[in-house]
Amino acid sequence: KVIWTVLVTILGSASSLPVGDDSICTAEELAKYRIIFTGKWSQTAFPKQYPLYRPPAQWSSLLGVTHSSDYSMWKKNEYASNGVRDFAEKGEAWVLMKEIEEAGEKIQSVHGIFSAPAISSGTGQTSTELEAHPRHPLVSFVVRIVPSPDWFVGIDSLNLCEGDRWMDEVSVDLYPYDAGTDSGFTFSSPNFATIPQETVKEITCSSPSHPANSFYYPKLKILPPIAHVKLVKLKKSQLGLSAPFINLPAKSNEIIDSVS
Amino acid sequence: KVIWTVLVTILGSASSLPVGDDSICTAEELAKYRIIFTGKWSQTAFPKQYPLYRPPAQWSSLLGVTHSSDYSMWKKNEYASNGVRDFAEKGEAWVLMKEIEEAGEKIQSVHGIFSAPAISSGTGQTSTELEAHPRHPLVSFVVRIVPSPDWFVGIDSLNLCEGDRWMDEVSVDLYPYDAGTDSGFTFSSPNFATIPQETVKEITCSSPSHPANSFYYPKLKILPPIAHVKLVKLKKSQLGLSAPFINLPAKSNEIIDSVS
Repeated sequence: KVIWTVLVTILGSASSLPVGDDSICTAEELAKYRIIFTGKWSQTAFPKQYPLYRPPAQWSSLLGVTHSSDYSMWKKNEYASNGVRDFAEKGEAWVLMKEIEEAGEKIQSVHGIFSAPAISSGTGQTSTELEAHPRHPLVSFVVRIVPSPDWFVGIDSLNLCEGDRWMDEVSVDLYPYDAGTDSGFTFSSPNFATIPQETVKEITCSSPSHPANSFYYPKLKILPPIAHVKLVKLKKSQLGLSAPFINLPAKSNEIIDSVS
Repeated sequence: KVIWTVLVTILGSASSLPVGDDSICTAEELAKYRIIFTGKWSQTAFPKQYPLYRPPAQWSSLLGVTHSSDYSMWKKNEYASNGVRDFAEKGEAWVLMKEIEEAGEKIQSVHGIFSAPAISSGTGQTSTELEAHPRHPLVSFVVRIVPSPDWFVGIDSLNLCEGDRWMDEVSVDLYPYDAGTDSGFTFSSPNFATIPQETVKEITCSSPSHPANSFYYPKLKILPPIAHVKLVKLKKSQLGLSAPFINLPAKSNEIIDSVS
């Protein structure tokens, strides 16, 4: 089961969980956030079949979108779109970008798209900025687990707005998902299309329940988080000429024990 | 030698080349552009040692910046920064992002950073938006060639401003560069640091002049362009709620013959 570690530091009280909340956002202005994605896929935490070369464990580009509840990038227990399939299987973003564009044009359900550069090891960080709109306060993104058949981590429709306020900071631990489009069982499985396609499923230490699965750790109750994401609202004084830069965090200590 | 295919479609006359131009930009407002990067690294155009698997030919994330002439991301015949080395060798963007951030903080020489998702094959497209400022009208970016020792394509300080106008459209063919930090000779060479570091050099069909080099084609006069970039100014009417999306081009025909 997914554990949402949500740190809500707004001044008022946080009366509802900010995930997938469909309530109306009455904040008056746009909000800018810095999103910081941290890979925690180390050989220590995930020793089984840890990919060391060709390619070593790493993360794809991050592709995300701010949107209304009329749009969904991906959802647990639902079928992945062609765009999410291409991204989860190959890290190919084009079709997913076109899907988002269409949702923006046809049903005005999208505010903005954002992407952050790939990370060349299992542990590391990447970051970018995003803008949320009161009518489009939800954020979704995906990052492909490399190598893998069709596994990814991400966020589905996290609501950054709480009534008339924007949240100041949100942190979420991330766990792996299977896009349901490739039947490979291990990080380095050859391509093998799942026909018929299955729905997006969380991968846990016991599911799929087969010893060959790369995340099958029968002695664990729960997998350690394989990644982490933090969204930090940028203050108005931080916007302006060098806005995209002044909040890039120092490389955190947990990165130093990176497997090279 | 690099060939700059610059299509200037502004209404006035284009009296000077828009590359590395240091003249003052007197345009009054910010300008938004869509940048479309097209990989043209096909097995047909580049048959020698074309990487088919582990990994197949592909492109990293695109990382770029809009800036003034006080900042330089990379420059031919100069030494690559640590950030450009990390990016060219491993596709790791973090150090380069920190360098850009520092330039933005210390000498106010940077306006904005942008990134576009990776492309999972040698031929394909990726795209994002960027914003240029009259005091920061230059655009630079890098995309790593994957696999390769430390090879990349990119643009160094392309000036989007022409006097008091922003250019409407700019197209540039791209050719490979060697970051001068890894002495590998072929796409799949093992890591082998270049000590002392060399400067950034263009790779041509005859240089490095050695038959083992992956781009050595002694019968050619010039390599075909390995990639292409187009920057298109977004009109004001195209900005707003769905601005990031309405100009994403259809996948061009040249992509269809992609090597899968």
